[in-house]
Amino acid sequence: MRIALDAMGGDFAPEPNITGAIAALQADSALNVVLVGPQDQLESQIEASGYSGDRLSIVHASQVVGMEEKPTDAMRQKPDSSISVCWKLMAAREVDAVVSAGNTGAVVASGLKTRLFLKDVKRPGIAVTLPTIAGHAVLMDVGANPSARPSHLYQYAVMGEIYAREVLRVESPKIGLINIGSEDVKGNDLYRDTYRLLNESPLKDSFVGNVEGRGLYQGEADVLICEGFVGNVVLKVSEGMADFLMKEASKHIIGSLDTERDKAKQAFQNLGKRFRYHETGGAPLLGIDGICIICHGSSDAHSISNALKGSAMFKDRGINSQIAEHLAQKPVA
Amino acid sequence: MRIALDAMGGDFAPEPNITGAIAALQADSALNVVLVGPQDQLESQIEASGYSGDRLSIVHASQVVGMEEKPTDAMRQKPDSSISVCWKLMAAREVDAVVSAGNTGAVVASGLKTRLFLKDVKRPGIAVTLPTIAGHAVLMDVGANPSARPSHLYQYAVMGEIYAREVLRVESPKIGLINIGSEDVKGNDLYRDTYRLLNESPLKDSFVGNVEGRGLYQGEADVLICEGFVGNVVLKVSEGMADFLMKEASKHIIGSLDTERDKAKQAFQNLGKRFRYHETGGAPLLGIDGICIICHGSSDAHSISNALKGSAMFKDRGINSQIAEHLAQKPVA
Repeated sequence: MRIALDAMGGDFAPEPNITGAIAALQADSALNVVLVGPQDQLESQIEASGYSGDRLSIVHASQVVGMEEKPTDAMRQKPDSSISVCWKLMAAREVDAVVSAGNTGAVVASGLKTRLFLKDVKRPGIAVTLPTIAGHAVLMDVGANPSARPSHLYQYAVMGEIYAREVLRVESPKIGLINIGSEDVKGNDLYRDTYRLLNESPLKDSFVGNVEGRGLYQGEADVLICEGFVGNVVLKVSEGMADFLMKEASKHIIGSLDTERDKAKQAFQNLGKRFRYHETGGAPLLGIDGICIICHGSSDAHSISNALKGSAMFKDRGINSQIAEHLAQKPVA
Repeated sequence: MRIALDAMGGDFAPEPNITGAIAALQADSALNVVLVGPQDQLESQIEASGYSGDRLSIVHASQVVGMEEKPTDAMRQKPDSSISVCWKLMAAREVDAVVSAGNTGAVVASGLKTRLFLKDVKRPGIAVTLPTIAGHAVLMDVGANPSARPSHLYQYAVMGEIYAREVLRVESPKIGLINIGSEDVKGNDLYRDTYRLLNESPLKDSFVGNVEGRGLYQGEADVLICEGFVGNVVLKVSEGMADFLMKEASKHIIGSLDTERDKAKQAFQNLGKRFRYHETGGAPLLGIDGICIICHGSSDAHSISNALKGSAMFKDRGINSQIAEHLAQKPVA
């Protein structure tokens, strides 16, 4: 298995990316990692790390997309960015997977431009794994497709179900449609039509119906489907809310204590770790003929290593062939 | 000022509603409250409360909409529900305001059916006040209008700005458009077109552009505009996330302590109160020719009393006349 790692993607790149790559290589002897970025800089960093094996190589990319850069500008102005070069390697079948903690918008835009889609897939979507009261749930799409059609959402249910089964190891994943009420007539045309599609599809036995925002974190379903605009807002609101709440809580609770402040501080730090979604190894862009794992911008070496191992698992479990097989039988319900 | 209070609305009705009404009457001598619900039941409850003034009256309604009932069914099957009767009183100008902690879907559906809209208003929307790092922000719409047009969202900016100025007392409210990136081309057609409308409108100096989900709780704007589908999901996800996080945090943190568990427990309870949005006195359905305040289903007497006082403030500050005046000049940018 050969993975292109965007060495320059992420808030702290390239340091944690190189360290994470080396950790993954040490854990999995079947892995090869191609670091994509400025040759000279990467060479000296690898040298400094002391790593000497031959499963870590470099492919040169002269440009870097900034984390806050506008994806459309980046695509136009930086054809030789580390992100673009990663995708070119996958399009040429020189790697099996692309892993990036870089500018998500640019990773997705660059990937969609390759049109490297699995057969019958209309639009790839990003599947993110979120913690819930019940354990975990997959939310899809969180931003690749901000104006989806019912047939796209139906395909997200197909892909999300396979992903939850194979990666989260949920035996019979329950599929829910994000909506603003439980009635089947709720929402707008997109969600009403998707409800009907799902309810008449081969997935109907797994479909638990509409799930309201509240139900997401209460674990009402294992796979939650929505269009990219809604999913992205849900994901970012959740992050912002968690940040805000944890800050307020730690200030408030720790401030109320006298002798056990340090214990509480430590407990808050441990809890914070549980809520970082990069612990799960990144979010796949599902529907690509290949593997693309998007990591959080704040990824550390541990997260990068997890994402690399996650790519290997993605391949081993045959997720793409299962998706293609399902869609070949029933492309849209 | 005369307010119709849905005596039967809310998880614990009618008890906290009656207690809350009496508290508001005692605090404001210009207030009259009309309790709407089953005459006999309400009469005996008022008697039991010991209240004897003449500013609390009853208007009979024989039916009650359940909190989990489907709004469409309720509308059809219960024409004499306390919710419907409240709206009839407002349509007949017998009251200035409607306050309900009942089934939100039914309150909105029943209200929209009256077509009691302010002149030039295309679609009323619900404005909810959320806590942020910076204090508070208004999010609109959170569910009255799940398939909005750009002109609707523009009007929400007009209404939300006036509400934030007059009720939250923000001197020059900053308006943000909920979106999935900061670029003006981000999102889908609805949000791109709304961006353009706002950017060329009389509100352009207050418009700070797109705000991502993360920015909401970071206080990037005082008024956040989106269609009802997105706003409702944001609101419910926030509630679910806060619940989940506070439960996990209190279990985890309290469990890490030895001698100061009670102090921490108390601090968590106090913090919980801050995050209940009914503390702010409910969410107005803006754009109605009249006043409608929607309270959280879990409202206690304090929240109901706040919502009644909030209705009085809404009238005193002349919010509706300001909305009508603004829209008369520029109905849609």
